[in-house]
Amino acid sequence: MAKITKRDQDYSQWYVDVVTRAEMADYAPVKGCMVIRPWGYAIWERMQRALDDMFKATGHENAYFPLLIPQSFLQKEAEHVEGFAPECAVVTRGGNKELEEPLVIRPTSETIIWAMYKKWIQSWRDLPLLYNQWANVLRWEMRTRLFLRTTEFLWQEGHTAHATAEEAREETLRILGIYKRFAEEWMAMPVLSGAKTDAEKFAGAVTTYTIEGLMQDGRALQAGTSHYLGQNFAKAFDVQFQDTDGENQYVYATSWGVSSRLVGALVMSHGDDAGLVLPPKLAPQQVVVVPILKADADTSAILTAATRLAEPLQDRVRVKVDDRDNVSPGWKFNEWELKGVPVRVEIGPKDLEKDQAVVVRRDTGEKTPVPQGEVAMHVADLLEEMQSALLARGRQRLEAGCHRAETLQALAETLETEGGFVYVPWCGSAECEARVQEETKATIRCVPDDAETGGACAVCGKGPAQWVPFARAY
Amino acid sequence: MAKITKRDQDYSQWYVDVVTRAEMADYAPVKGCMVIRPWGYAIWERMQRALDDMFKATGHENAYFPLLIPQSFLQKEAEHVEGFAPECAVVTRGGNKELEEPLVIRPTSETIIWAMYKKWIQSWRDLPLLYNQWANVLRWEMRTRLFLRTTEFLWQEGHTAHATAEEAREETLRILGIYKRFAEEWMAMPVLSGAKTDAEKFAGAVTTYTIEGLMQDGRALQAGTSHYLGQNFAKAFDVQFQDTDGENQYVYATSWGVSSRLVGALVMSHGDDAGLVLPPKLAPQQVVVVPILKADADTSAILTAATRLAEPLQDRVRVKVDDRDNVSPGWKFNEWELKGVPVRVEIGPKDLEKDQAVVVRRDTGEKTPVPQGEVAMHVADLLEEMQSALLARGRQRLEAGCHRAETLQALAETLETEGGFVYVPWCGSAECEARVQEETKATIRCVPDDAETGGACAVCGKGPAQWVPFARAY
Repeated sequence: MAKITKRDQDYSQWYVDVVTRAEMADYAPVKGCMVIRPWGYAIWERMQRALDDMFKATGHENAYFPLLIPQSFLQKEAEHVEGFAPECAVVTRGGNKELEEPLVIRPTSETIIWAMYKKWIQSWRDLPLLYNQWANVLRWEMRTRLFLRTTEFLWQEGHTAHATAEEAREETLRILGIYKRFAEEWMAMPVLSGAKTDAEKFAGAVTTYTIEGLMQDGRALQAGTSHYLGQNFAKAFDVQFQDTDGENQYVYATSWGVSSRLVGALVMSHGDDAGLVLPPKLAPQQVVVVPILKADADTSAILTAATRLAEPLQDRVRVKVDDRDNVSPGWKFNEWELKGVPVRVEIGPKDLEKDQAVVVRRDTGEKTPVPQGEVAMHVADLLEEMQSALLARGRQRLEAGCHRAETLQALAETLETEGGFVYVPWCGSAECEARVQEETKATIRCVPDDAETGGACAVCGKGPAQWVPFARAY
Repeated sequence: MAKITKRDQDYSQWYVDVVTRAEMADYAPVKGCMVIRPWGYAIWERMQRALDDMFKATGHENAYFPLLIPQSFLQKEAEHVEGFAPECAVVTRGGNKELEEPLVIRPTSETIIWAMYKKWIQSWRDLPLLYNQWANVLRWEMRTRLFLRTTEFLWQEGHTAHATAEEAREETLRILGIYKRFAEEWMAMPVLSGAKTDAEKFAGAVTTYTIEGLMQDGRALQAGTSHYLGQNFAKAFDVQFQDTDGENQYVYATSWGVSSRLVGALVMSHGDDAGLVLPPKLAPQQVVVVPILKADADTSAILTAATRLAEPLQDRVRVKVDDRDNVSPGWKFNEWELKGVPVRVEIGPKDLEKDQAVVVRRDTGEKTPVPQGEVAMHVADLLEEMQSALLARGRQRLEAGCHRAETLQALAETLETEGGFVYVPWCGSAECEARVQEETKATIRCVPDDAETGGACAVCGKGPAQWVPFARAY
């Protein structure tokens, strides 16, 4: 098995090596598109299940809206069309005929969904509508990366309708909270959160909230967004309801989404030079038992012992005995390390003699001989410990990756030498924000709720400023 | 709540009424497309979960392949392109530019998947590949019906690759068995199964196997197909592997799918003049507790009793207390009947006095007073009983819906008067098959494994014939 590129040699190439060699994804023969292979898809399925449970626990229901949207729908919300029209794939022929009106493949579904909400919402009794859909969407991208940015991607998009602005704002923040909790508790990826600036917000939103992770190379990654849409789409699609006083009112809206790019974020949060490192909660296989079969040993006794070790684990964790006889134990070790399986249990002739097995954890490489009867308990505990340890290390890395700079020059230098999030005093103007981006390629990742205020804007010198985290981002 | 059309007045309209009024689906503003609303989608989700578990238990893994397929790929398999090209939606513009090569939205994914298998399969060690994907597909349809036939639909498509024809044929039949078991055990819908004739098989298959349900109006519905593809796609995409002797061989393939049309089949298998009747295993809500609140009664005592009844059920079944105060109990009864919830539990002032509740089953309408302490046990048993009863009734209906005819005229008459599956002796020729279809609009639904042989073809009089079920179909 050829080695993968080391992270400090070429982080981008390391990422591609891990994703392709761990068989998470492959390039499709269509420009900008990817194939999600079973190992990558199984991680996405676990993410979906966890998020879906959280959405349902907060009263959301799943639905499914059409892939194709009449081009004219997109044009009903001015900012929305400006943001998305250039990225659309357009169907002009169907059933061997030219279409009268071209159809775009959904880049996001606000417009088709609000056209339906118009049919379904009449009274305050019909509200709130708390719908989510799991779907594929398509945005014509020029520069793509597996999982992180592809022309087609998988995501969930929530679209809710409310009687009041307050309820809609609460919903927007409730979902932001779910995203944050998911990132931390499942992905072991701590995040910054806050509002996007006007320059960075969703096309059609009043306010966009975001969670932002920090990748190992010092770049930020937007991991999920939740938008308060005000009445923008209700007005564009004329969706009114009769309130309890019998008055007609426009409906208030939110939308929110996370996508399969989270799989890429997971790779770049925990991977190492041997490959993927998966948080146990999201690992398709949590434990692999590798029998050390040697030509001169009693292989059947070892295989039996391996199976016996796996049995008590079967009900509690996702465990597999790798009993292939056409590759060596060392080859198997490398393969499962590359694929990020959290725990490996080795059992060979010497272990059999000592009534033990060797438990190896993926994140630290630590090897522990454990009496066979205690392996199940030990492994179950270890998986929990690893999940916490990965989050703790993520927290340390995020903390160490946050810096401060008072001037544009200091910001530029810190980005060059350290990367990460650099907090900088900013006056709040779009001009100063744009100037920073021109000079450093860094953007404001979010305006935290509890942003520190004071000092003078690093660009124009005006005050009082607020300290916001700039970063170069994926 | 306005009544729905009765089945014997207009079965088609009854179907549309049930699907739309039970809020399972709605028409989309794009021709031929539908919106799957939460009640319909929740049923589909339960179907997905059950099938996905069965696929995984037999060694299959999920993956995801691109939505868009280069038009040239479709043309590599001669029968395949002939079958699907006329139904394709074509993307000709992307990112505001004309594309050099048009892309079709997948009508099915054999071609893009086999283009990838070419990259992934080299040796016998890479086989079998047992992949499935859950996805949307699009076929430009002229006449559409909610769930049963829509331009875009949701489905799963399995695509497997094998070293030998025998293994691939076994896989084809293994999946047919899964589909049959799912239809019976989950949908309570017994089916006929067998091979399609050449005229009816999948474009690109050597053999297509099918399961066929019988709807209440006497029409057949193809509910799932499993295709043995031989080496057709392996040859079209040049996918060879080195066998254990070091020889290069083309790979053998299968593909198989069921779609969201199963939701429509469920409606037409069990529904009645009050609306949907859902088999408990697939019902999003299995039990609804309706407190009978009257102005002059102690409503809080009744609400408390309703909640207390639901509590012990919560861990075992999907139960909901309908405590809305803006609609009457009668309105609620109608609504939950329309939505097909298997069991309703009523509790009012008189029940409170007698320490009982009234349990009503959806399929028979039977009402049983049950002591409050026994409701949980009673309901759990009743759900199992209903699941079996629906299957038993389905079996009776299928049996009663199977007829025999020895001549073309007798077939035509039976189709007119009885509908259903009419077994007819057939010589095996495509000409006689086509002749029957021209005259009666009925097609051979399948050639059963154990087809009775003997007699003379109902069309040409040649023998020995085999008896095959003809039916008019959805």
